[in-house]
Amino acid sequence: MWVRNCWYVIAWEHEIPADGFLARTVLGEPLLAYRTGNGQLTILEDRCCHRQAPLSKGRREGDCIRCGYHGLKFDAQGSCVEVPGLDKAPPGARVKTYPVAEHNKWVFVWMGDTARADITLLPDNFSNDDPAWHYKPGYMHYDTPYLLICDNLLDFSHLSYVHEKTLGGSPAIAQARPVIERVSDKGQRGLRVTRHVPNVPPPPYYSKIRPLSGNVDRWFIYDFLLPGTLLMKSGGRPVADAPDDLSNAVQLHSCQTLTPETETSTHYFFQQAHQTGRGDASVTEGIFQSLVAAFNEDKDMITAQHRNLNADAAMQPLWMDAALIQWRKLLEQEVATEQARHAAA
Amino acid sequence: MWVRNCWYVIAWEHEIPADGFLARTVLGEPLLAYRTGNGQLTILEDRCCHRQAPLSKGRREGDCIRCGYHGLKFDAQGSCVEVPGLDKAPPGARVKTYPVAEHNKWVFVWMGDTARADITLLPDNFSNDDPAWHYKPGYMHYDTPYLLICDNLLDFSHLSYVHEKTLGGSPAIAQARPVIERVSDKGQRGLRVTRHVPNVPPPPYYSKIRPLSGNVDRWFIYDFLLPGTLLMKSGGRPVADAPDDLSNAVQLHSCQTLTPETETSTHYFFQQAHQTGRGDASVTEGIFQSLVAAFNEDKDMITAQHRNLNADAAMQPLWMDAALIQWRKLLEQEVATEQARHAAA
Amino acid sequence: MWVRNCWYVIAWEHEIPADGFLARTVLGEPLLAYRTGNGQLTILEDRCCHRQAPLSKGRREGDCIRCGYHGLKFDAQGSCVEVPGLDKAPPGARVKTYPVAEHNKWVFVWMGDTARADITLLPDNFSNDDPAWHYKPGYMHYDTPYLLICDNLLDFSHLSYVHEKTLGGSPAIAQARPVIERVSDKGQRGLRVTRHVPNVPPPPYYSKIRPLSGNVDRWFIYDFLLPGTLLMKSGGRPVADAPDDLSNAVQLHSCQTLTPETETSTHYFFQQAHQTGRGDASVTEGIFQSLVAAFNEDKDMITAQHRNLNADAAMQPLWMDAALIQWRKLLEQEVATEQARHAAA
Repeated sequence: MWVRNCWYVIAWEHEIPADGFLARTVLGEPLLAYRTGNGQLTILEDRCCHRQAPLSKGRREGDCIRCGYHGLKFDAQGSCVEVPGLDKAPPGARVKTYPVAEHNKWVFVWMGDTARADITLLPDNFSNDDPAWHYKPGYMHYDTPYLLICDNLLDFSHLSYVHEKTLGGSPAIAQARPVIERVSDKGQRGLRVTRHVPNVPPPPYYSKIRPLSGNVDRWFIYDFLLPGTLLMKSGGRPVADAPDDLSNAVQLHSCQTLTPETETSTHYFFQQAHQTGRGDASVTEGIFQSLVAAFNEDKDMITAQHRNLNADAAMQPLWMDAALIQWRKLLEQEVATEQARHAAA
Repeated sequence: MWVRNCWYVIAWEHEIPADGFLARTVLGEPLLAYRTGNGQLTILEDRCCHRQAPLSKGRREGDCIRCGYHGLKFDAQGSCVEVPGLDKAPPGARVKTYPVAEHNKWVFVWMGDTARADITLLPDNFSNDDPAWHYKPGYMHYDTPYLLICDNLLDFSHLSYVHEKTLGGSPAIAQARPVIERVSDKGQRGLRVTRHVPNVPPPPYYSKIRPLSGNVDRWFIYDFLLPGTLLMKSGGRPVADAPDDLSNAVQLHSCQTLTPETETSTHYFFQQAHQTGRGDASVTEGIFQSLVAAFNEDKDMITAQHRNLNADAAMQPLWMDAALIQWRKLLEQEVATEQARHAAA
Repeated sequence: MWVRNCWYVIAWEHEIPADGFLARTVLGEPLLAYRTGNGQLTILEDRCCHRQAPLSKGRREGDCIRCGYHGLKFDAQGSCVEVPGLDKAPPGARVKTYPVAEHNKWVFVWMGDTARADITLLPDNFSNDDPAWHYKPGYMHYDTPYLLICDNLLDFSHLSYVHEKTLGGSPAIAQARPVIERVSDKGQRGLRVTRHVPNVPPPPYYSKIRPLSGNVDRWFIYDFLLPGTLLMKSGGRPVADAPDDLSNAVQLHSCQTLTPETETSTHYFFQQAHQTGRGDASVTEGIFQSLVAAFNEDKDMITAQHRNLNADAAMQPLWMDAALIQWRKLLEQEVATEQARHAAA
């Protein structure tokens, strides 16, 4: 169950080499991404229209891609411009191209109707490219369906347990009830989750950012937007400080996004940014390492959950599932809308 | 095709740690076994009723298990006694529990109707816990269906070939026809196999127990009981000795049992005991190593057989299949009885 | 889609040991090949008629095979001649045997109706066993369907791209159109492909055979015969030499054949022979190493193609597919003929 008419992140900008290309599968479709001589990003289906060999087994020739099996050559518009032994390629010979966008260090691909591709729908992942923020970019591959990872990101009560010794540090996170709202401004569709956790010990990984001796008030305020993008402000402030005094606070901004690779595997792109001037490169590295350690805790749990799923067994709904349930409804609505539109066309 | 209303061995007693737990799948159901503070064994379904994460990814908290994903806590009766953020857990929230029994160092789980669990049906695996007998406990995992291993244990003619250089030592074992009888006393259901093999060389592994220079008369007398438990007296006596003179004999008792893990994998618990006073720890170790070597010969053959099975090819019935055929009938009858009872309920 | 009534290569002669046997699966059937005391090759189904264990887990006993599970013994005609514990084996107890032929170092098995086995249908793989030719025999295992490798061998345009730095060396190979003819003399059924490539640089691997400084005229003339055997004359002659002057030419003969192992895996037997006197053992080894390097290039491409195949995606037919298309028609006709014959019988 995938929404197609939205922007999926296919790569961090730096993953696409200047001269070569990147091959990555999105929604089960093999894609090849590269940058032409004038800097324009291009995404082609990574499957030659002749015998279905991956074009990524071939090579760049200027702005074109030459298939490495029988030598067909395709331009950046997907048209076959050369077939060995023919004066002219057959007019219909081409591979599919996909709308592409670059926005704050993320490269996006539009997997739905080309006519609907709309760059105003790109998420506000500002901290990926803002001099006020520092981070190290992350990527992780999951061998689980994307929806199980959405579930994880929509319910931070797991921080108290999965991340007890990393991002969590207190059972109070799981006890604090978040406010969940529907987000639909500027065409973005998703959920806003706001969780305040007063008077708790600073989580273990804060020690890498800023040593805080007493308890803190923590907050997590994030949008989780279609197709699976988390944009979050989070932080902690010493309880003794006035509510508007952030001078001793830890303040973070995080951009994370999930892109289904196949029905049972997922790409995960993420960063957690700290404010420039609040620490040097070792702080940036420390946050990154803490995040990777914590995300491996998630991966371990979600992978075990995935293997343990039994379609015949029930799931007991609980209050902390509120966002998960709304998210599944939202996905179902979007998919139904797309299918109805498709059937009408 | 599994019988459910019977005791399956889930573990050797020593496999269940004092403070932690053991996770093991039986008949396709993930189980978690642990011992409460008062020593009582407990078996819970290893699948949280909330989002199906394995409870074994969580932790013990006293006599309870805390799920490591969202922190639900379950007591030893399977009831959810805590949900983070709720004053009281929902009344129906619970995981399944299973009847459990300890008997002579084996831990048993009852996979059928709880009301039918009956400890008088536990097998007479006495040598597992008898000061007159010494052994080293064994466990082996098979990636083949349980029934193929039952076949192996029900026909010892394979000792002459699979175990020619270990437990066998003579083609005469395969030539000797066993007596096969139905066992049904004390509620136990199964087969009794009695095989005498006169005047053969002692098998290679006897050298680790007691060097015997001339030929011996060997015997194998065992019950093979539902669900898949072998209880055997075996031994060999110098042919020159009087029939009732066991002073120079090798005498062994063996307890072995098969527990299906999934449709295509199996747990195998086993020991071969020798009489106390008939050799020291090096004899115990020698017998164990010989048994492991021999059981790896079985595993190698059965795994190859499993890969080679062709449902379209016939199997030529032979006299040595008599016990296998009776066993399959017994299993079919039991399964049919259970299904009829289930349909009536 | 396999033709059954033809000779498949199961092994190079040297792969069948004097005293043991070779186990290899052909068309999904496990086979066991061995040589009896008088030198006669024998192929049995590698599956005991009793409990389907592979006979190859057993052992040779003279000209017989003893099953390693329960000791049944089979002679070279597949008859069970001994069952432990029986005076006489049951009359119907036997394993299937297959017609076998040896021809120029290849061992062939007939997978169709025994009555139709006809040694006049063996291919003319003369250079496998001709003192005028030298080669080193090769074998490679593919985890792809056989038909994708047939496609590769039926269209040498890929030499320009897959083998650019090994067997190819020029885009002109892909541009040169071959003549494709149906072959059906002497009962052989297949295609003849004749391709001349004038005035191109010698391919990189010629340097291992005979350094040629200027351009050459190259030729590839081969039959591709059922079930998947390539018999090829190829070579190159300095363009300055007269057409009938081969004194400075590279001349090669190659025998290659594909045998399906399963629906998705394939055996590949091959050699590329050079003329005796045209180089010593280091030339033979150099050609072999070049061939293996090139065939690994094929395997890499075909494996990637296989993973990338999408049954819902179209394939654009091009001129270079002419032989592929004819080959598929030929296979379909043969299979249809066999099925009609089978239905009539």
